[in-house]
Amino acid sequence: MRDTLSIEKPTLVLNEERARANIEKMASKTRASGVIFRPHFKTHQSAQIGEWFRERGVDSIAVSSLDMAAYFAAHGWQDITVAFPANILQMGKMNELAENIDVGLLVESTETAGFLGRNLESRADVWIKIDVGSRRTGIPWQRLDRVLAVAEEVDKADLLNVRGLLACAGHAYDAGSREGIRQVYDETAARMADVRDSLLGKGFGDVQLSVGDTPTCTLVNDLGDVDEIRPGTFVFYDLMQLNMGVCQEEEIAVAVACPVVAKHEERHEAVVYGGAIHLSTESIADSNGAPIFGLVALPTEDGWGPAVEGGYVSSLSQEHGIIKLPDHLLRGLRVGDVLMVLPVHSCLTANLLGVYSTLDGERIATMVAT
Amino acid sequence: MRDTLSIEKPTLVLNEERARANIEKMASKTRASGVIFRPHFKTHQSAQIGEWFRERGVDSIAVSSLDMAAYFAAHGWQDITVAFPANILQMGKMNELAENIDVGLLVESTETAGFLGRNLESRADVWIKIDVGSRRTGIPWQRLDRVLAVAEEVDKADLLNVRGLLACAGHAYDAGSREGIRQVYDETAARMADVRDSLLGKGFGDVQLSVGDTPTCTLVNDLGDVDEIRPGTFVFYDLMQLNMGVCQEEEIAVAVACPVVAKHEERHEAVVYGGAIHLSTESIADSNGAPIFGLVALPTEDGWGPAVEGGYVSSLSQEHGIIKLPDHLLRGLRVGDVLMVLPVHSCLTANLLGVYSTLDGERIATMVAT
Repeated sequence: MRDTLSIEKPTLVLNEERARANIEKMASKTRASGVIFRPHFKTHQSAQIGEWFRERGVDSIAVSSLDMAAYFAAHGWQDITVAFPANILQMGKMNELAENIDVGLLVESTETAGFLGRNLESRADVWIKIDVGSRRTGIPWQRLDRVLAVAEEVDKADLLNVRGLLACAGHAYDAGSREGIRQVYDETAARMADVRDSLLGKGFGDVQLSVGDTPTCTLVNDLGDVDEIRPGTFVFYDLMQLNMGVCQEEEIAVAVACPVVAKHEERHEAVVYGGAIHLSTESIADSNGAPIFGLVALPTEDGWGPAVEGGYVSSLSQEHGIIKLPDHLLRGLRVGDVLMVLPVHSCLTANLLGVYSTLDGERIATMVAT
Repeated sequence: MRDTLSIEKPTLVLNEERARANIEKMASKTRASGVIFRPHFKTHQSAQIGEWFRERGVDSIAVSSLDMAAYFAAHGWQDITVAFPANILQMGKMNELAENIDVGLLVESTETAGFLGRNLESRADVWIKIDVGSRRTGIPWQRLDRVLAVAEEVDKADLLNVRGLLACAGHAYDAGSREGIRQVYDETAARMADVRDSLLGKGFGDVQLSVGDTPTCTLVNDLGDVDEIRPGTFVFYDLMQLNMGVCQEEEIAVAVACPVVAKHEERHEAVVYGGAIHLSTESIADSNGAPIFGLVALPTEDGWGPAVEGGYVSSLSQEHGIIKLPDHLLRGLRVGDVLMVLPVHSCLTANLLGVYSTLDGERIATMVAT
């Protein structure tokens, strides 16, 4: 890694080339599949990184909060789906957005649909949230009666339009294998199509299908069964995705540079400045079920090398990370050296650190740190 | 909770009266024990909350980073221990601090001691970090040879002074019982005294003992075996402390107000706006070992009520929280209501949300969000 970075404290280092390649790959696939690419910007939360998507023809995005929608709207994005159940306590913010851009809102109850119908002051699209098996939010896909009731409630409001059905197959994360993840996609698309057919049968016109999560959108080659996809994490990937067989390690585009502050050779450990408030406490399990909070790589001239065999973050405090390292590496390590930690969940790590340094030392701001 | 708060999104609500009572209780105990009270400000990270300590006679504090030290120095604190192993990559920041205030630095190796000796430009105190059994950082307490070597290296530098020995008995969190936590304190004090006696025997003069963590400092009545204590979390407490029997639920001074965005009665769940980027993913285990990411209380006129029997956060996404609620409560709950979530680890939650609202609707800033 070039000296221009001059790491002094935990720093979120971004390999721009890898992130741009990840974007290009997903953009190409969506083009080939003939579907709309609506990337989820909650992962990077950065207007500047958003431009890399725009350069690949993206003009519609998803976000996870109204504040995030307002941030990207202020940076010129005109078509934003707030992929989170509409929070009626923020009606003012929804009206501001709807006045200025094409906004898509998520609804899963007649109560919320009715409230929006009574209180929205500008046109907005409504996506009816469908639970295709993740059991997080949405109307269970079998409950066609409830989907229809919400669609009818939305339809009553002059300013609201039923744009389509939206799902997030979060259970893809528990599928256990690449084949299992692809099955989740097939099942999701089939369940969504059932619900759509039912709505079409009741006289609703153009009902689009929106799905999206990084595992299925990465592993499925032809996404043509739906109208749009909304993956987010793929821009950086991370250890959770690597662990599921979704990405290659060489596709992981972010790492946290952490100064070494202590060595404990008798415990085969180094201590780094880089803890829970930098990495997040998300973990993956090692073969014995023990938590791993990050893998460790060494900095190189042009970024970082492959994850070190036997090197991982074994525990975290607020600011400390405990790193297990093989003895031959630990022996040569010195206080003041820098280790690179590949994050378990890049969305949470990026949200915590709030600013990126590219390998050239350029600072990239986000909505968290401007 | 008064309408002045007008919750719209996840909001860190602070019961000032409880926090002030927690401060007063710990301040009284330190006075009675005749020890220095050096509270750890990493928990609240707020200049304004710092003033509540100053009103109780506190004039020395601990922080967990040099940035945090600089923030509190800018707010008039003149005696700050950076309770994290000195990070030699931030030598410039250490020199700035040492020039302006009485700074205490943590050292656990001759390498770091030597580096500081060669590069510090103003006087600074050094605390030698001792590992009393937590196996995180510090020289193992039995390794008197290494402690002495560091002390001698420090002593060589004109601008450095061996102030004492510092430990954090992080293993108190694994002690399993209130009695076990008290035993950790006794053992810690005894081990620290052994190391001090050894240094005194080698001609070192005034060697102070600094310990600190919320469990031991809360549960031990007479802290007179050491010279100063550095607990932090006690200002707010949290579910982790409650779970260990360290605090009462009525002492927990922060809760996250979360808007209800969906109800799933068939799953006995509500979905709130309030997820991993608000609460953190820290968890405690229920009786079956399943993770609990927060307990749930109902808002009241003057804050929040007791945790609801059978109400807890069962899973978290980036912005969503899934709340298990007993049917009788869920039935009356509506989209747009607010639930209060008691956090598992208040330090991480406060760091994520970055700003407090008191029960009177006053906004309290931190170094994270000014």
